[in-house]
Amino acid sequence: MKPIFEIAKEIGILEDEIELYGKYKAKISLDLLNRLHNKKDGKLVLVTAISPTPAGEGKSTVTVGLGQAFNKIGKKAIIALREPSLGPSMGIKGGAAGGGYSQVVPMEDINLHFTGDIHAITTAHNALSAIIDNHIQQGNELQIDPRRIIWKRVLDLNDRALRQIVIGLGGPIQGMPRQDGFDITVASEVMAILCLSSGLKDLKERLSKIVVAYTFDKKPVTVADLGAQGAMALLLKDAIKPNLVQTLENTPAFVHGGPFANIAHGTNSILATKMALKLADYTITEAGFGADLGAEKFFHIASRYGEYKPSAVVIVVTVRALKMHGGVAKSDLKIENVEALKRGFENLQKHMETIQAFDLPYVVSINQFPTDTENELQELKKLVEGEGVLVAISEVWAKGGEGGIELAEKLIEVIEKNGKEHQELYHIEDPIEVKIESIAKKVYGADGIEFTSSARKQIEQFKENGWDKLPICMAKTQYSLSDDPSMLGRPTEFKITIRELKPSLGAGFIVALTGDIMTMPGLPKKPAALNMDIDENGKITGLF
Amino acid sequence: MKPIFEIAKEIGILEDEIELYGKYKAKISLDLLNRLHNKKDGKLVLVTAISPTPAGEGKSTVTVGLGQAFNKIGKKAIIALREPSLGPSMGIKGGAAGGGYSQVVPMEDINLHFTGDIHAITTAHNALSAIIDNHIQQGNELQIDPRRIIWKRVLDLNDRALRQIVIGLGGPIQGMPRQDGFDITVASEVMAILCLSSGLKDLKERLSKIVVAYTFDKKPVTVADLGAQGAMALLLKDAIKPNLVQTLENTPAFVHGGPFANIAHGTNSILATKMALKLADYTITEAGFGADLGAEKFFHIASRYGEYKPSAVVIVVTVRALKMHGGVAKSDLKIENVEALKRGFENLQKHMETIQAFDLPYVVSINQFPTDTENELQELKKLVEGEGVLVAISEVWAKGGEGGIELAEKLIEVIEKNGKEHQELYHIEDPIEVKIESIAKKVYGADGIEFTSSARKQIEQFKENGWDKLPICMAKTQYSLSDDPSMLGRPTEFKITIRELKPSLGAGFIVALTGDIMTMPGLPKKPAALNMDIDENGKITGLF
Repeated sequence: MKPIFEIAKEIGILEDEIELYGKYKAKISLDLLNRLHNKKDGKLVLVTAISPTPAGEGKSTVTVGLGQAFNKIGKKAIIALREPSLGPSMGIKGGAAGGGYSQVVPMEDINLHFTGDIHAITTAHNALSAIIDNHIQQGNELQIDPRRIIWKRVLDLNDRALRQIVIGLGGPIQGMPRQDGFDITVASEVMAILCLSSGLKDLKERLSKIVVAYTFDKKPVTVADLGAQGAMALLLKDAIKPNLVQTLENTPAFVHGGPFANIAHGTNSILATKMALKLADYTITEAGFGADLGAEKFFHIASRYGEYKPSAVVIVVTVRALKMHGGVAKSDLKIENVEALKRGFENLQKHMETIQAFDLPYVVSINQFPTDTENELQELKKLVEGEGVLVAISEVWAKGGEGGIELAEKLIEVIEKNGKEHQELYHIEDPIEVKIESIAKKVYGADGIEFTSSARKQIEQFKENGWDKLPICMAKTQYSLSDDPSMLGRPTEFKITIRELKPSLGAGFIVALTGDIMTMPGLPKKPAALNMDIDENGKITGLF
Repeated sequence: MKPIFEIAKEIGILEDEIELYGKYKAKISLDLLNRLHNKKDGKLVLVTAISPTPAGEGKSTVTVGLGQAFNKIGKKAIIALREPSLGPSMGIKGGAAGGGYSQVVPMEDINLHFTGDIHAITTAHNALSAIIDNHIQQGNELQIDPRRIIWKRVLDLNDRALRQIVIGLGGPIQGMPRQDGFDITVASEVMAILCLSSGLKDLKERLSKIVVAYTFDKKPVTVADLGAQGAMALLLKDAIKPNLVQTLENTPAFVHGGPFANIAHGTNSILATKMALKLADYTITEAGFGADLGAEKFFHIASRYGEYKPSAVVIVVTVRALKMHGGVAKSDLKIENVEALKRGFENLQKHMETIQAFDLPYVVSINQFPTDTENELQELKKLVEGEGVLVAISEVWAKGGEGGIELAEKLIEVIEKNGKEHQELYHIEDPIEVKIESIAKKVYGADGIEFTSSARKQIEQFKENGWDKLPICMAKTQYSLSDDPSMLGRPTEFKITIRELKPSLGAGFIVALTGDIMTMPGLPKKPAALNMDIDENGKITGLF
């Protein structure tokens, strides 16, 4: 690792704009964006993927490897990634920030408290919760209905016992009893807001707009009504500054913000991406889950608020994952199976059509695994090329940037050939149901949508409240193009059922929930945490 | 402010031992203590106070001012203070780290997230909670009785609605329903442990010993039984490193750890104080609340585990506070009242006797307020001098170090005259009830103690479990020498009732609870948070 100070200097960040957090992490002042306001943005590349499977696709690894590859061929590139949540690290998977020779470092810090952003979000979120319950306890001037508080509490942990709780027990001195629950912090609207804000002023305005509850008269109560936006913004004053780290090959990487990709939009902060665009010729970023969720939201939500003009897309695919989409069990993935691969290809095909619908050039990146056979790799390559699309086999896990050069070069080729701006798939002025239908039909390949009666009622109410001119944030299973996680491949003849809507007015979108979306994960029987250790010399084990 | 890098260099910290958190905060590596292992410690001065009143005594302000005064007269001094909790800052009082010209800076950072220590403690604590509930959910191999879990959850906020809650609702997939509650993070045993640990190894050993619950057979269940100590220590790997900041006059200050002074011991981390002792000729530290709580625990708990040999004590007193102890209402404090002052003096007198009982030299510091009259100040000075004790009027709030020079000089005088080691007031081998009785009689001036029947039963059980050879941590109201907060001055003819005992085996003490101790504060009708703001240029208002 180089001192982060040097990395920052090399990409033109001024000394006054860097705040060091130890030797290898730094926060970058928002002043940088003012200073470079008139500088032309570099090219923006979005890395997305097929529908994820338990086999793993390695989207972050490809994102990191691609950034490294650009630098290897003499192009100035910066990576912009989400910061990981502690909960899942302590739970199932250990830490994550790429893999093999395509990782961001220092991994142990990035995977633990990092620069404290998520803790600041937890605190700002829960401070608001305490202010709501205190308001009720102290006379309830705003007439908040304790049965209609939609603002839950959060912790950055996997803790199923906190999903459904009753608070305020113990008599009149201890508060008003009511039902409540905890979500994981990355599911907080504060996280989504932080990632979509253009600065402190916008942050505070967005915080003010959060709907926390309804009155006994069913009128919405916002953060502005409670007057908590100032304290919340103050608690987020450092968290809003993008974090700069580096990859194993010293490629600069912004790792900042990490909203859920189901009930939120699933991309790193706009401020980090904007900084990267000002500082580099190529900015490589990624979006959560498959193209049906991450890319769709990237174009309709993040690009809207960030005013992005993405130049191209990478779709990450693996032989293993397509074989699962083609019906192979995880335990049989090591066995060559070209037929299953061919069947599973239709999942990739649908995601390719989606990117075409957004009218952007793209390259398919086959992320090579050691168990892939040459037959399988060549067959997959042929299938993609058969569609007239550029494809590159990437070996970024095993070889770092070197393994991504073909991908980088093909990307430059499509970018230089094209100068188009992406097209949205709905108009922001469309009614809520039309917007949802556009996504379901054009992105998922559904025949149509169904609304529960309560969702229909909500649509009416949202229209009355003037909340209908916002983009939609779909909360759908990531495993299937449909809303049924067991339907792999490319399902056809299905409808999407919208169970409920949720106003995220601070973030600036309406969440449309299909099926049950887990916003507080649980720990498995043997949590990863129980294998973690640090010895007296500071040596860490079990985190990765 | 000077760059903290320079401050660190001036006191002999090596470049490799400093981890910067921005320009004005740093964490110091524990390697420093290994490097300076054979260096002789400097002198340690404890700042304590009379029984606190709503009038405010300014103990931290005197501590900071005294450190500055030492430096003004050419002595190398370092200050060691607790780090403030966010909860109270958002609640009643706004931030706090000294006052006037005797403050540690950068105040806004110290009062918000600082270097993330308290957030790390919150996370380590709640990770353990999640592991406990997950253990029960996944088959409950250890046979934990859900009715006998004594490990609550924590948040660094004032949030009364979380004091008594029911968790695990929603059916078999969401966990086992049980009663629970949240404390404020600074009341966590993890905070006490962090502050009493001598390094990473000791930290992990202490964490292992925490008793979290009892089995259906009433056997204690510890963190070691669950195997969570490694992950918890890992989460605390940075939090354990002392934080270095500076005062307004550039005196170095360690601000690290902030345990409650009732259910815990109320002093900053041993590691920070040890570093200061190695680096300075005079280390000035303080302990929470009055001498009956803070100083007693400093001598019996912190000095035991830190192997401190304090050289002298400062007792902070104000004219205003003694007038309140003498019966004056807060609203009448501006009116001169020498008679009330004389009556209230008995509170100071008792605390002076306590310090004498510990056999240490001391100086009384009258912390001057603008409303104090010359008559009152001189009368108080005379009263103290009448006892043959050195006294100094300090004007550290208004004048910074300059206002504390008399105090510093008198302290040096008593330190140089004396070379005694402090005496403990009980033997560690004494039975629990004898240790409690010693404190109640010798420190509070009580006639005796009474135990509830459940406390008696606990004493028996603790003895059976082998937990009786530990120091006692009294949880008593800070407002009175007795356990009745309304008995100001120097109460006589009273008994102390021990309601309940709590094993804090990781911290290494037995908590003896008298009356109700609030471990999760509530917000007032108009929380300080609602006046806080930050504008688009980062200008902060309402925090102080």
